[in-house]
Amino acid sequence: MIERYENPKISHIFSEENKTNLWQDLELAAIKALVQLERVDPRIYYEIQEIWLSHPIDIPWWKERDEEIHHDLNAFLDERYRWLPIELHQFVHQDLTSFDTEETPFIIMLKQALQIIQDLSIELDRTIKALAIKYRYTIMNGRTHGQEAELQSFGARCLAWCQDVNVALNFLSQAEANLKYSKLSGAIGKYGSIDPEVEKITLEYFDLLPFYGATQIMPRIFYAPIAQALSNLVTVIDKVSTDIRLAARSGLPLMQEPFKKKQKGSSAMPHKKNPIRTEQDEGMARLARGYMSMTNENIKTWEERAIEQSCVERVAWPDLFHTTARALTVLNMVLKGLRVYPDNMLEEVHRSRGVYASSEIKEFLKKRLKLDNEDVYRIVQLAAFNVFEPEPGRITIREQIPNSFEESLTLLNRFKASPATKIVSLADFIPAAQLRFNDELDITPEQIEKYNKYLKKLFQSESIKQSWAELFTPAFLLKNEKILYQNILGV
Amino acid sequence: MIERYENPKISHIFSEENKTNLWQDLELAAIKALVQLERVDPRIYYEIQEIWLSHPIDIPWWKERDEEIHHDLNAFLDERYRWLPIELHQFVHQDLTSFDTEETPFIIMLKQALQIIQDLSIELDRTIKALAIKYRYTIMNGRTHGQEAELQSFGARCLAWCQDVNVALNFLSQAEANLKYSKLSGAIGKYGSIDPEVEKITLEYFDLLPFYGATQIMPRIFYAPIAQALSNLVTVIDKVSTDIRLAARSGLPLMQEPFKKKQKGSSAMPHKKNPIRTEQDEGMARLARGYMSMTNENIKTWEERAIEQSCVERVAWPDLFHTTARALTVLNMVLKGLRVYPDNMLEEVHRSRGVYASSEIKEFLKKRLKLDNEDVYRIVQLAAFNVFEPEPGRITIREQIPNSFEESLTLLNRFKASPATKIVSLADFIPAAQLRFNDELDITPEQIEKYNKYLKKLFQSESIKQSWAELFTPAFLLKNEKILYQNILGV
Amino acid sequence: MIERYENPKISHIFSEENKTNLWQDLELAAIKALVQLERVDPRIYYEIQEIWLSHPIDIPWWKERDEEIHHDLNAFLDERYRWLPIELHQFVHQDLTSFDTEETPFIIMLKQALQIIQDLSIELDRTIKALAIKYRYTIMNGRTHGQEAELQSFGARCLAWCQDVNVALNFLSQAEANLKYSKLSGAIGKYGSIDPEVEKITLEYFDLLPFYGATQIMPRIFYAPIAQALSNLVTVIDKVSTDIRLAARSGLPLMQEPFKKKQKGSSAMPHKKNPIRTEQDEGMARLARGYMSMTNENIKTWEERAIEQSCVERVAWPDLFHTTARALTVLNMVLKGLRVYPDNMLEEVHRSRGVYASSEIKEFLKKRLKLDNEDVYRIVQLAAFNVFEPEPGRITIREQIPNSFEESLTLLNRFKASPATKIVSLADFIPAAQLRFNDELDITPEQIEKYNKYLKKLFQSESIKQSWAELFTPAFLLKNEKILYQNILGV
Amino acid sequence: MIERYENPKISHIFSEENKTNLWQDLELAAIKALVQLERVDPRIYYEIQEIWLSHPIDIPWWKERDEEIHHDLNAFLDERYRWLPIELHQFVHQDLTSFDTEETPFIIMLKQALQIIQDLSIELDRTIKALAIKYRYTIMNGRTHGQEAELQSFGARCLAWCQDVNVALNFLSQAEANLKYSKLSGAIGKYGSIDPEVEKITLEYFDLLPFYGATQIMPRIFYAPIAQALSNLVTVIDKVSTDIRLAARSGLPLMQEPFKKKQKGSSAMPHKKNPIRTEQDEGMARLARGYMSMTNENIKTWEERAIEQSCVERVAWPDLFHTTARALTVLNMVLKGLRVYPDNMLEEVHRSRGVYASSEIKEFLKKRLKLDNEDVYRIVQLAAFNVFEPEPGRITIREQIPNSFEESLTLLNRFKASPATKIVSLADFIPAAQLRFNDELDITPEQIEKYNKYLKKLFQSESIKQSWAELFTPAFLLKNEKILYQNILGV
Repeated sequence: MIERYENPKISHIFSEENKTNLWQDLELAAIKALVQLERVDPRIYYEIQEIWLSHPIDIPWWKERDEEIHHDLNAFLDERYRWLPIELHQFVHQDLTSFDTEETPFIIMLKQALQIIQDLSIELDRTIKALAIKYRYTIMNGRTHGQEAELQSFGARCLAWCQDVNVALNFLSQAEANLKYSKLSGAIGKYGSIDPEVEKITLEYFDLLPFYGATQIMPRIFYAPIAQALSNLVTVIDKVSTDIRLAARSGLPLMQEPFKKKQKGSSAMPHKKNPIRTEQDEGMARLARGYMSMTNENIKTWEERAIEQSCVERVAWPDLFHTTARALTVLNMVLKGLRVYPDNMLEEVHRSRGVYASSEIKEFLKKRLKLDNEDVYRIVQLAAFNVFEPEPGRITIREQIPNSFEESLTLLNRFKASPATKIVSLADFIPAAQLRFNDELDITPEQIEKYNKYLKKLFQSESIKQSWAELFTPAFLLKNEKILYQNILGV
Repeated sequence: MIERYENPKISHIFSEENKTNLWQDLELAAIKALVQLERVDPRIYYEIQEIWLSHPIDIPWWKERDEEIHHDLNAFLDERYRWLPIELHQFVHQDLTSFDTEETPFIIMLKQALQIIQDLSIELDRTIKALAIKYRYTIMNGRTHGQEAELQSFGARCLAWCQDVNVALNFLSQAEANLKYSKLSGAIGKYGSIDPEVEKITLEYFDLLPFYGATQIMPRIFYAPIAQALSNLVTVIDKVSTDIRLAARSGLPLMQEPFKKKQKGSSAMPHKKNPIRTEQDEGMARLARGYMSMTNENIKTWEERAIEQSCVERVAWPDLFHTTARALTVLNMVLKGLRVYPDNMLEEVHRSRGVYASSEIKEFLKKRLKLDNEDVYRIVQLAAFNVFEPEPGRITIREQIPNSFEESLTLLNRFKASPATKIVSLADFIPAAQLRFNDELDITPEQIEKYNKYLKKLFQSESIKQSWAELFTPAFLLKNEKILYQNILGV
Repeated sequence: MIERYENPKISHIFSEENKTNLWQDLELAAIKALVQLERVDPRIYYEIQEIWLSHPIDIPWWKERDEEIHHDLNAFLDERYRWLPIELHQFVHQDLTSFDTEETPFIIMLKQALQIIQDLSIELDRTIKALAIKYRYTIMNGRTHGQEAELQSFGARCLAWCQDVNVALNFLSQAEANLKYSKLSGAIGKYGSIDPEVEKITLEYFDLLPFYGATQIMPRIFYAPIAQALSNLVTVIDKVSTDIRLAARSGLPLMQEPFKKKQKGSSAMPHKKNPIRTEQDEGMARLARGYMSMTNENIKTWEERAIEQSCVERVAWPDLFHTTARALTVLNMVLKGLRVYPDNMLEEVHRSRGVYASSEIKEFLKKRLKLDNEDVYRIVQLAAFNVFEPEPGRITIREQIPNSFEESLTLLNRFKASPATKIVSLADFIPAAQLRFNDELDITPEQIEKYNKYLKKLFQSESIKQSWAELFTPAFLLKNEKILYQNILGV
Repeated sequence: MIERYENPKISHIFSEENKTNLWQDLELAAIKALVQLERVDPRIYYEIQEIWLSHPIDIPWWKERDEEIHHDLNAFLDERYRWLPIELHQFVHQDLTSFDTEETPFIIMLKQALQIIQDLSIELDRTIKALAIKYRYTIMNGRTHGQEAELQSFGARCLAWCQDVNVALNFLSQAEANLKYSKLSGAIGKYGSIDPEVEKITLEYFDLLPFYGATQIMPRIFYAPIAQALSNLVTVIDKVSTDIRLAARSGLPLMQEPFKKKQKGSSAMPHKKNPIRTEQDEGMARLARGYMSMTNENIKTWEERAIEQSCVERVAWPDLFHTTARALTVLNMVLKGLRVYPDNMLEEVHRSRGVYASSEIKEFLKKRLKLDNEDVYRIVQLAAFNVFEPEPGRITIREQIPNSFEESLTLLNRFKASPATKIVSLADFIPAAQLRFNDELDITPEQIEKYNKYLKKLFQSESIKQSWAELFTPAFLLKNEKILYQNILGV
């Protein structure tokens, strides 16, 4: 991974130093297993261990040897043999094939890297939950299809994010839980020379179990789900990031990424505050899905193994982990410093003219008007269309398509001079029973007249008016959000 | 493809009827080639042709036979042989292998389907261009990173869409232009029994050239670029669709998909007008990329061929074409019926407080103030931040996080009661030389004082004021859009 | 999916009939929940149920209505309302949004389809296990990198296939186990009008739990892992299929797909028996990965939902299930009718000249020769290269590159006339201590002399000779395969 | 890319040094354009140029600055401004937005990297062509579906490889040819402040044309085809590599990768010579397709641009080029050192018992026997099945499934002792008219009797016998390969 997006802990885990140290751990463990089985004298084990621990692996020597013999594990063994007296050679890598040495370290490296992801995720989870609590009563429009839908608290949206991330993490944990097997079963996995007992004991030192049915390598079907779960996690992060980008759109931004005091948004336009971090998370998701697709194909190999998977794993795994770590770090940073504008959320709610209660008022009317479903639906639909009809002055501006930039300017100036639009809410509009024809809908004047009659009659009752007004209050509309808080946060 | 998204013309092209008719065309052409080479008596050809044309292929018989012998081309031949006297059998499929018969029809089917795409694209192109012309002087904010950037006409945005689509189509045409080769070179493509002359002449009837270097089949590298170009085209359509969805976001929609008079946006919320068509185009892009990835892998096969590619091609090609046709049809329909709200565009421009000229005013000041780049940049940046500072009443609302839904309601009511925000443009703000401290930026009061001094001095000049005012006019800012119109539309 | 690859059970599950029936089940269950909560009179429920069950959904009417209002769930409701007296309308779809009705049926359909996959998998598992038992003592060469490696039984290879498939199925089961949640939480998932109790009870009827944190829809992160697990399963099937294709390569086929008595392998070459079924499974894997990639992206949507995912799910899910079912069916059919040639396996073993024991003999010599690891390795390597050196007559043929096809024929005839190569095994070659120089290896004559001296000395001992001979026996080499049988099959 | 697979030239191209130098070139060119338009004094240009060229970009300073202002291009400008007197600042980056500076260098970097790929491809092409010429008359079995098909020369297979690679390269060249446009059109691409003339002249210095219709960036649809063509090329390389792996399978290897004199094939099994390089090329293809899929999605962005594509491009482009370069280098190295075993090819031909002529003999008999197509097909099919029937001793071995490893050993020894199979070719078998019943085919004894009668009669003629014998000669079967040599190599 390029330096810009690198996570140093991930880099360390996949470093040659960490890898070869783990290989050495495995080789030592395999000897120790023979000691435990009383086939090798413990002193042999301690002698080898002492020599090796006091002579760190010479990475450059190893790599040079690999260049010569084209086999990195053999080259590693040659490096290690250098320090041992000849009579100890036979105890090293006894009955093993290269991948018996490499498989377990690979699994350990995956687990180490998953731990980093876990840690970052816990931080992110904490950040989101803090937002959910802070903004439990801060109201905003929910949006489906990018359109104002029902009312919700910003806190409740955070809870949905929180659950999205946690489902993704839960799947990741499940995939990780399957990393409990490994193999030390010789060249083609049939224990030709190696004793299954040695495998069992050696793996126990690493908290792993033998997988019966391996070939020369573990079937790659064990690892693909890890990459898939990571890629899904990054896609979820992109989802949350995109919600922030959408909310940050200029005009009436509801929230914004942190912007540093010396930051520059654009070389050309000094006014810009761009959501570059949340946008980057979309890029990270593209990268993650690409890396995942690489590892998917590794499931397939020929017979007892071929080595196509090796280069893919050397490249795709660290980069996928870097990508995931980066995405988590970026989102956490954004959410930690998130600037939230509750006043703009209120403005949005206000401007939405009470349609956020359209579902409730439809149900309300359904129970109280002797009309069929279709009619009730059309009443609310027409009312909603009515309250958004532009004023006549505005219609003129809308319909006059300019033929020059001078005309554009004239229109702009006319717009500036025209009075602000009056905002009428459904809360007031429907009881007034003044539904009117709208040419976007196929509802006839006769129907409308009938509807108004019904409405007029209904809203004569004071108690109806009162219940009606209550339909538009946050306390009524969001009364059940507490279920979410109880079940997700236990508060 | 499921009926819902099916294009009937595409279905016909990939139908068994069309395919087997094309196979028959090929078999006849191969005999005709032998006639031309004077190796077969023309009467033989005409006899076979007459018999076949008067006995349409019996599709059910063919399929039953295929079930039995597990070879669809052989089954087809068996069906055709049925109608011929034995002595004519030897002239049919002479020296050919199955794929000699199938390859050319496959190419023809691709070309036929590409023609459908072409036709739909021409319609789409026409629709976009009409919009570009209609809205040549209708101004709106350009947006980068979802944030208001410079001013542009809506027509100019249409031109960018138009070019995006046309670049995609251009790549598609290039990929199609490579479909000029085919093969009739026998079992492993080495002309074991077939004469290269027969191949050449037969292909000529289909306007194709022999590809020297085929194996039993044409290398699939010829077809992958078609799928890639189609998938890229659908991704471009998704890009344009997404721009529309973004512009349609409620609050201040700039444009909207057509909504039918009896349409229902939601079963729960009668007020909804959702951009379901443009959203569907995003789904289409996901499908298209999936189908493309299937055909990419077909490039690889074993030695002189294996048949993994066959089932992929039977499934992915028609479905990719259906997907592309659907995406084109949907976008064209949306754009044809697009509801555009120029008044809302003006409102957006107005509310953006003149920052759409920030780049120009930075350059203007750079040339006139004796300050370095950094200082000029910071002046414009600070001014832009200043004009967006909320009023004190609003700040109070912003900073008071409610602790109950009752408090939320109180805040909402307070918001409704508070006076509308006054909108000050950079056009007036900067000449007033009243820059003030903003805690989002690291600019000290001393610097600000200096900046104001410079500005005050500069704007004493009347001529400066006048040039300054002009910086904010569409005529000035968009003067160069004509270049785009000239070069793209020739108008 | 095209008819050719369609599974009728899968088609039924995703049919409009099954889907709308499940929608009806959900609507009825939601009313029943209200009955259980004593908010609706049970007679109401029974009345609606009776009317609906006696009037099957009119699919064509529904589709026509959908065309008109562009909302399939609303159209479905309209169809159902038709049969109910007006006063019952209000009890239907009360407080629900469309996806409250659609989500649970979608999950049920996934589960139904997964059941089909499960059933097919059990059959496949049974078939593979029967092979493993039948061929427990049938020996063959294991192959790594396509090269002869150690000896194994064909049964043991079947065990590896078996485990591969079962790991894939295990992951699929885990993904399925996560399908335990659904939602009935209203328009944006915040229970605006719907009572959480209604959700809970309704879902109980379907053995599901409420997911707290849904938006208008369940987060798609729940479904992506299903597609990934299916795609991984098909890739595993491709892996097994490829092993069969490799084993079926002509020259010395070890096994072959069943070939029907009237089947034709090729229209041109009557001798052909092609592994078209196992090749098709590679195509199926390409399709499956494509469908998976489509659903991966569905994880991302805007805010409380947009509808991009819908068309993808309508198309990709059934087709992915068809693809998986097809791949399973094909492989099962191939394995059930698999023709196995144990004699050819023996021929292959024989021709491999004892190198299948190279690992064991290396360890054997390591313990008995006073040489370092490197030397012992090189002894076995050189011996292996020596036994494969061609005879002089053959070298002549090898090195004479023909300059015309006449020369080619001469060489072919010379080859036919030359005596068969004598096959010498390492079992005999190494004890003879006749290692000789090989120009492919960098081992000097001096070294070789030394090696021969060591070997000669070692093999003077009769007991050594005897132990040595035993190294090459199946009973010795495969003694540990029983561990696999015990752990995988319990036999 | 990790060091192991890195191409140093590619690394240099995508280095920060090369990139920032190209940025500087662009900035200078933009000033030079103003000079050419006589808007800036040439001395200004030369002064800036001289200062900059004598003060190389301080990469660490630049990166530190970027950390601070979160904008790499602005940080670069700040670094460059440092060296200029204030009065020169205004001439730098005048009217430009960041991507006006970055886009062209990005294109140049792509072109530079494509040149490396081109160079490597020319080498590969040369290597393959040399093989094609060398082995023009070296015969081998063609293989379809992994099964022996018709005869071909190894040279002719090389020609198919050659064409595969060249088609891939041709598509790459076409994609590259579209890299002829760039942009310098300001913040949202509408030439708000920049003069289109400046763009035109600046781009001319880089041999590029303005793209009318860009937004803040060039549409990414221009670059996706490059990645697709690269990925297709690597998939083609994988195809060729796989053919080599298949031919190298032990038993009767037809060719092998070079194996170094000190190389070790396996840590466990000293006899191994594994095709690790060609296997690596399959891994490279998996990587390449993953990188491609990342860039595909970059086509989509919001409105006038967002920055998701940036991180993807920073990572995927260099890595895709490294991957492609690696794959080309590896394959070229393999083919240059390829060990070819023509004697084994002959053995394979010999063992295939003349079926390589089955297509020709079918056509031969079709013209000479008064039988319908079906009958002639079945004659050749039956004969082919007959000549492969195992001898009785072998059938016994085949059918006796051992029940212990001791029995396995007995069978193996019995096999070794049994006489070698006699090889009978169709060339002799069919004229002998001794077709016999084969239970794999549904051909009755009566039919067979009839067939033998026909054959016996036909082969009474000496001239028929002679023509028949000729059908099996390379000179006859491969006579048309010269067409391929003429058309592909012009020889």
